[in-house]
Amino acid sequence: MSRQWNTLADDRRQRLARVGALASGKHVTAGEVVPLLEALLQPGDRVCIEGNNQKHADFLSACLAQVDPARVHDLHIVQSNLALASHLDVFERGIARKLDFCYSGEQGVRMARLIKDGRIEVGAIHTYLELYSRYFVDLTPRVAFVAAQSADAEGNLYTGPNTEDTPAVVEGTAFKSGIVIAQVNEIVERVPRVDVPADWVSFVVKAPKPHYIEPIFTRDPAQISEIQILMAMMVIKGIYDPYEVRRLNHGIGFDTAAIELILPTYAESLGLRGKICEYMSVNPCPTLIPAIESGFVKSIHCAGSELGMERYVEQRSDVFFNGPDGSMRSNRAFCQLAGHYADLFIGSTLQIDLEGNSSTATLNRIAGFGGAPNFGSESRGRRHSSHAWLKAGAESASGISRMPRGRKLVVQMVETFREKMQPTFVEQLDALQLQQDFNLDLPPVMIYGDDLTHLVTEEGIAHLHRCATLREREQAIRGVAGYTPAGLARDRRAVENLRDQGIIQRPEDLGIDARLATRDLLAAKSIKDLVRWSGGLYDPPKRFRHW
Amino acid sequence: MSRQWNTLADDRRQRLARVGALASGKHVTAGEVVPLLEALLQPGDRVCIEGNNQKHADFLSACLAQVDPARVHDLHIVQSNLALASHLDVFERGIARKLDFCYSGEQGVRMARLIKDGRIEVGAIHTYLELYSRYFVDLTPRVAFVAAQSADAEGNLYTGPNTEDTPAVVEGTAFKSGIVIAQVNEIVERVPRVDVPADWVSFVVKAPKPHYIEPIFTRDPAQISEIQILMAMMVIKGIYDPYEVRRLNHGIGFDTAAIELILPTYAESLGLRGKICEYMSVNPCPTLIPAIESGFVKSIHCAGSELGMERYVEQRSDVFFNGPDGSMRSNRAFCQLAGHYADLFIGSTLQIDLEGNSSTATLNRIAGFGGAPNFGSESRGRRHSSHAWLKAGAESASGISRMPRGRKLVVQMVETFREKMQPTFVEQLDALQLQQDFNLDLPPVMIYGDDLTHLVTEEGIAHLHRCATLREREQAIRGVAGYTPAGLARDRRAVENLRDQGIIQRPEDLGIDARLATRDLLAAKSIKDLVRWSGGLYDPPKRFRHW
Repeated sequence: MSRQWNTLADDRRQRLARVGALASGKHVTAGEVVPLLEALLQPGDRVCIEGNNQKHADFLSACLAQVDPARVHDLHIVQSNLALASHLDVFERGIARKLDFCYSGEQGVRMARLIKDGRIEVGAIHTYLELYSRYFVDLTPRVAFVAAQSADAEGNLYTGPNTEDTPAVVEGTAFKSGIVIAQVNEIVERVPRVDVPADWVSFVVKAPKPHYIEPIFTRDPAQISEIQILMAMMVIKGIYDPYEVRRLNHGIGFDTAAIELILPTYAESLGLRGKICEYMSVNPCPTLIPAIESGFVKSIHCAGSELGMERYVEQRSDVFFNGPDGSMRSNRAFCQLAGHYADLFIGSTLQIDLEGNSSTATLNRIAGFGGAPNFGSESRGRRHSSHAWLKAGAESASGISRMPRGRKLVVQMVETFREKMQPTFVEQLDALQLQQDFNLDLPPVMIYGDDLTHLVTEEGIAHLHRCATLREREQAIRGVAGYTPAGLARDRRAVENLRDQGIIQRPEDLGIDARLATRDLLAAKSIKDLVRWSGGLYDPPKRFRHW
Repeated sequence: MSRQWNTLADDRRQRLARVGALASGKHVTAGEVVPLLEALLQPGDRVCIEGNNQKHADFLSACLAQVDPARVHDLHIVQSNLALASHLDVFERGIARKLDFCYSGEQGVRMARLIKDGRIEVGAIHTYLELYSRYFVDLTPRVAFVAAQSADAEGNLYTGPNTEDTPAVVEGTAFKSGIVIAQVNEIVERVPRVDVPADWVSFVVKAPKPHYIEPIFTRDPAQISEIQILMAMMVIKGIYDPYEVRRLNHGIGFDTAAIELILPTYAESLGLRGKICEYMSVNPCPTLIPAIESGFVKSIHCAGSELGMERYVEQRSDVFFNGPDGSMRSNRAFCQLAGHYADLFIGSTLQIDLEGNSSTATLNRIAGFGGAPNFGSESRGRRHSSHAWLKAGAESASGISRMPRGRKLVVQMVETFREKMQPTFVEQLDALQLQQDFNLDLPPVMIYGDDLTHLVTEEGIAHLHRCATLREREQAIRGVAGYTPAGLARDRRAVENLRDQGIIQRPEDLGIDARLATRDLLAAKSIKDLVRWSGGLYDPPKRFRHW
């Protein structure tokens, strides 16, 4: 008996034949999706639900949650972000059992409960790039649900500016004899541009309402504090300037928004325009508008888009990556790659231990980290050099290698106390408790201490990569940990010694007058100011309009 | 005066209008390409020439070398692989000046001369993923030349199985108002599938002959030596088995071909089918055929294709990533990513120093490393676990971190002497001399010693990740360096001590009878055997047919 080598392609043909009557060619009506899924899916299937940071195949996901668990069960869901209730309903109803994912955000508490109850069996928690990689290795989807703005009669898809994960999901599925189902907001005669060719798509359905998009990159300048402005000044003068950081990624949050908003004022006064922050790998955060308008940022490649920024991005095609149709093409895989190989990542966290390991994991939540571990880790496969990379490499205390090497700048920017006066600096991360509670293979660390080069707090900058020993690194961390218990327990002499070496720098060591750290430095003090900077092109979502 | 924000789009419109008369819509005849390029290109333009490992936009590159340097000069070429004479002619003729690239292979000597002569100014030498990343950062092409199998009247492109870098090149160019020119082998009424949508493509030209493809992944089993078979046995029994290596990347060469060819014999006899080597990120190397046919390898995602393997790959769609049309879709970006996040990379090198740093760089050549540094480096952004990754992490001598972590297996497999009895083990890599000679920022190291976990020679395996100090690592390396000067200078007591700890393992320590390491173990002893294993589907290029 000779072995069959094309069973997946045969199986696809059979499934498509089986459901043929429910579709008109590739087109399925919204009302037929549940019966179609019941006829199409088989127990144990690996199903990829497009759940990006922002864009969600929400209608298809809700339909999946409605199928009969007696017919469709034990699915293996692969999904980068779980954000909606329906994403977990499929587990609660027994339709799905196994889960491989990246980030769960607000669903983290419910997910933790479902795991404890044995309703979800977690394969692994990934970073984005890892999960996309596994679509081409051992987590190839049998069926994928994706979301797009429009489709034409043939099934060509236009994603609009939120292309995000779609190319990776579709390529992994369509080219291993899988089935791709797209929900679209509208069917049009001709799509503005083709983001996914029709022959990669099996079914198209016009959803009853447009797919859900979350505006997660909007920060209101009104909420930026003077402490954040002081830290932003230190980052610019103490890191961006000496390292000449041109290519970078900013995390999301008010800390990095503060940096963006003082580029046109503070960094301009230092003569840094054209010298720092020229190329960014980020989403189109509205707080970037003043830095773009004043000529700091030259080019931005985006992982996804941001609600309200569509027209502004279209009118700034020299800066953003837009299609011939005018709208942006984002791509999370390439943006994550670009950020990984950039010279610097800066972001914030909830907890840091005395080795510099940091995590946003908190007890009773299974959340994951999305892209941060990828941005915030040494790019050891990098071989091209830059001033920043060579300088950081040359300064690094040597480990067990004498070979000269470059190094990525990985910066964490935190206030010493976070909400409810919880200290940011801890003897032991909650991640270790979480590991025990959920029987994880490793503690969920976001950024490892030995990947971290700089720590910035309101007390100063610690140049951790220059510390030769764990004990030195510990004192450098304590030395900027302020009035937290970890900060108070510092060895004062050791800290002063580190300061003498320039491993710890206070604002005054950097020539920064802390009294100038006021909101007057912000190029925009409100959302309305951002709209003004954009010449009216930025159209903020209602919840951010306070006028 | 208000700033212009869409200058690139305006410039593209102007250029397209300027050359309009030379094209019929998007279609250009071969004879018009030189005048078209002369009218289209401007001095200083950044031009990306698709030069993959295998597929080359050779006709467009040859046309570029013919333009008038008085009109077109000082171009900045970005190109992953330089393989053809015309790729360097453009520098010799003064048409181009600056170069960012990954790999130059056989052109390395000529390139070195052109650099010395000041005809080429090298920006940087990259790994593949880094260069693709920079297409979205600071090396975005203004004009890109790509190669495809066919195009339709609209300009939709079908790449055939050698998709390779095309998606990355085109996306980076088309979405920053750049111009994409595709050379194709044929114009057809309907492409078998759409690999690049027409609206991403500016011009299409049918080249006078099919684009050049290099068969670089074919290794004739007839040339595999018994030493290579012994090393392959050690790799399987000493590494793949205990670590249960399921997801991996093989470098190219006879060493890894030997592993592939004894999977169906030796690994089968150890009961390892279904336990190792299930998921691979490699090109469709013909020496993989017996391992596929005997059920070892379940899935392979490819960076590119290999000449002669087309029909075999088409008939094995359960294993390869094929399109609905039947032919393979390769993708170097995703394949490199998948390999980076896999559990193991194994490859060979020319020189290794006593810290374990290795390089294939040789004097008077500027060659680069392509993808090896990316495959062969720790994936510090990885957060999902596997048995192999956790075991390697747990065994690793801790650096300056106490936080538990996983680790990628990075293996170098070398004979102690290479061609002309040159020792593989050296006190100092030629890379350091090369750095001096060419004034490079860093020595061109392919794989750094602190990323390397295992070294395999005919004398044994050194588990380098378990060495706590540089001195211990040095003795572990000397301990498998055979009769080379480095090997002879070993501290015998230290080496025996390492062997007692299992850090060094000889074949007999692994229960391997070296007398069984004969060519009888090879599942295929010749190219003809491979054809037979494939049921006649593998169609080797003429130069490999010796019957």
